[in-house]
Amino acid sequence: MQIVRYRDDGATRLGLLEGEIVRAAGGELFGQLLPHEQVGPVSELQLLPPVAPGKIIAVGLNYADHVAESPGRPLPESPVIFMKPSSSLIGHGDQIVLPPGAEPVHHEAELAIVIGRRARLVRRADAYDYILGLTCANDVSARNFQRQDGQWVRAKGFDTFCPLGPCITTGLRAENLAIEGRVNGQVRQSSNTRHLIFDLPFLIEFISGVMTLFPGDVIITGTPAGVGPIVPGDTVEVIIEGIGTLTNPVIAFADE
Amino acid sequence: MQIVRYRDDGATRLGLLEGEIVRAAGGELFGQLLPHEQVGPVSELQLLPPVAPGKIIAVGLNYADHVAESPGRPLPESPVIFMKPSSSLIGHGDQIVLPPGAEPVHHEAELAIVIGRRARLVRRADAYDYILGLTCANDVSARNFQRQDGQWVRAKGFDTFCPLGPCITTGLRAENLAIEGRVNGQVRQSSNTRHLIFDLPFLIEFISGVMTLFPGDVIITGTPAGVGPIVPGDTVEVIIEGIGTLTNPVIAFADE
Repeated sequence: MQIVRYRDDGATRLGLLEGEIVRAAGGELFGQLLPHEQVGPVSELQLLPPVAPGKIIAVGLNYADHVAESPGRPLPESPVIFMKPSSSLIGHGDQIVLPPGAEPVHHEAELAIVIGRRARLVRRADAYDYILGLTCANDVSARNFQRQDGQWVRAKGFDTFCPLGPCITTGLRAENLAIEGRVNGQVRQSSNTRHLIFDLPFLIEFISGVMTLFPGDVIITGTPAGVGPIVPGDTVEVIIEGIGTLTNPVIAFADE
Repeated sequence: MQIVRYRDDGATRLGLLEGEIVRAAGGELFGQLLPHEQVGPVSELQLLPPVAPGKIIAVGLNYADHVAESPGRPLPESPVIFMKPSSSLIGHGDQIVLPPGAEPVHHEAELAIVIGRRARLVRRADAYDYILGLTCANDVSARNFQRQDGQWVRAKGFDTFCPLGPCITTGLRAENLAIEGRVNGQVRQSSNTRHLIFDLPFLIEFISGVMTLFPGDVIITGTPAGVGPIVPGDTVEVIIEGIGTLTNPVIAFADE
């Protein structure tokens, strides 16, 4: 099942994606969703982030090839977690706004987990029971602020710096999914989730051992090698097998 | 005005603190609150964190005397911000649970801002217009994980690691407020908000220039010198002039 959220005459609605067509959905995102009438092609809807998370937990340095892009940085012994504020979320098609002084700003294609039920001290063998589904994320990052602050919240926390979507795919396992980051159609990142240093069950055991996760919380799982700058006029895509393509144009702050 | 939230027969209620007595409040936390009947002494109520924030932004290293406690660390040129997850919140009287492997765990007495209305690109001269009020926070921190990860979210993000309360005091300015941290009645931290490196208006301008703040969002503003370990059996207090005392006992994970 592929779940979308969209704006309809000012209201927020849930829908089910069937190929290119969206069908309205009744019921509950974390309960049972019921298909209703068709509302049209997905390309004609204003998609929202497919969930409104209470918190977004991010994992740094979780593909060995990306760790190697930062000279001198060792492989982490345990996941390095940080947070992005929910105010940074945008949906498929929304604009990434580059703030003044952020230079360079990089794309980071990532697989995102959407939590389906309250999770605390979950064992990795049970982790998939707590996952509603998977989606695409872009962990947009201002490298100068990341270096300057040491802590990554400012660099990665600007409004519009967390594109999420286009849909949540349920029932999908993440052992072997192709993941790509493209800028203006050119492939910049190309990897597979089998190269994750800490896989999804490990991450859910680790993070739920620190903090209680609630339905709708999002975990973004790290980016592979190939991160690079984005500038106004660019279009960035995150493409994950079994999910789809998350597309966002890039503009300068002054053009907002 | 001093605003509390409390549990009443399973429901969450707002109240107004009048000396030691709580009066139930009608209306809206971010609109107008209306005093209703008295519900009893505050000591007999189960207080909750006085607000349910969408996000908690924290400021590191914001008192010069605390920066000097970390040898070799320079004064920051701009605020260093990080986040604590809302799952880490507890109220006045709730237990801080020390997780396995966290050693040492330190108290950090902090002044907390509660945002009153949507804030984006706020100028410092206007900052107090966006503040609902001020409260006390304890930025509980597991130092070993803080060193190990580099990023501070795990070390400071465990469940129960963000005591907040007991009340929100409205109409209070933070230029000159005594702040104390006590363990078992002994003063460990004693300073004044006039020693903040970046004051509240500066922080609100800075943070609202990065991310949109929403009503209920919390900013914890940094801790003065004197942080130190807490162990099971301890009682920690954060005392701020014009607000009150936030008290939390400390227990081990196994005793939870």
